[in-house]
Amino acid sequence: MRHIISVLVENQFGVLARIAGMFSSRGFNIDSLAVGETADPTVSRMTLVSRGDDKVIEQIIKQLRRLIDVIRVQDITEESHIERELVLVKVKADRHTRGEIMQMASIFQGRVVDVCDKSLIVEVVGSRERVDSLLDLLKGFGVLETTRTGSVGMLRGEQALKV
Amino acid sequence: MRHIISVLVENQFGVLARIAGMFSSRGFNIDSLAVGETADPTVSRMTLVSRGDDKVIEQIIKQLRRLIDVIRVQDITEESHIERELVLVKVKADRHTRGEIMQMASIFQGRVVDVCDKSLIVEVVGSRERVDSLLDLLKGFGVLETTRTGSVGMLRGEQALKV
Repeated sequence: MRHIISVLVENQFGVLARIAGMFSSRGFNIDSLAVGETADPTVSRMTLVSRGDDKVIEQIIKQLRRLIDVIRVQDITEESHIERELVLVKVKADRHTRGEIMQMASIFQGRVVDVCDKSLIVEVVGSRERVDSLLDLLKGFGVLETTRTGSVGMLRGEQALKV
Repeated sequence: MRHIISVLVENQFGVLARIAGMFSSRGFNIDSLAVGETADPTVSRMTLVSRGDDKVIEQIIKQLRRLIDVIRVQDITEESHIERELVLVKVKADRHTRGEIMQMASIFQGRVVDVCDKSLIVEVVGSRERVDSLLDLLKGFGVLETTRTGSVGMLRGEQALKV
């Protein structure tokens, strides 16, 4: 099963290396990873997406909690949550196809953020499935490059992951 | 200076650990990191944001290119590019303040993606500066938690980062 895990860490040299090293030495794969700042400049928040049976994921979380500079670990998969990913995709486009691509982007609430005579860049936000659907549709036009942030997630309601 | 670096890597165990280890062993800090899939399942694309003078960044890029499983490295900072970050922010909100928060979110083209009687979650996409401005405005209401993807970036025009 695919799990989405939020991790609060001290913003120290080496914490990312320790986490990545723990995953790779145990043969756990990371599907995606997003690391950003929080309101507290000494703390970063990571979102990890990994696959494995529940026991494996439980083991990963235990190991994460033991690492230096890891403050909190929360698996939000089973609880009611919001999950979103941001993607930029550069698609071949000329005056014959541009309109159709823009129409598809707009159905997915995407925005065209750059355009030239041979291509354009669409920005889209959504769940992984939603983003994948748009990317599938755009394939036919010729995708030149894609950059994805990986998923971030948050529990619905007022409960928060705090230091 | 703040640099935004795109890296294509083989989707292998250990590549993230090697990159993170290289940064931490040399005392280079990573401000943000986003790792996502590409159209090719054997290749991931990372976006690293780091600070340092141009010589330090040049050194980082040289070191990155030497690492096993690193395919391409591109510093897009100096060229015309799109940079975007996705943020989810949970803000205290009741019936007296909800309207004002929604108004602010909409000025930043943000969307309310969850609401309960004591809080709501805003999703916003933009440059780092844009996202920071909204977060600053929301502080007054009480921010419960924030999760940021870190920046992703792409050159404008048809040139693409390819394997």
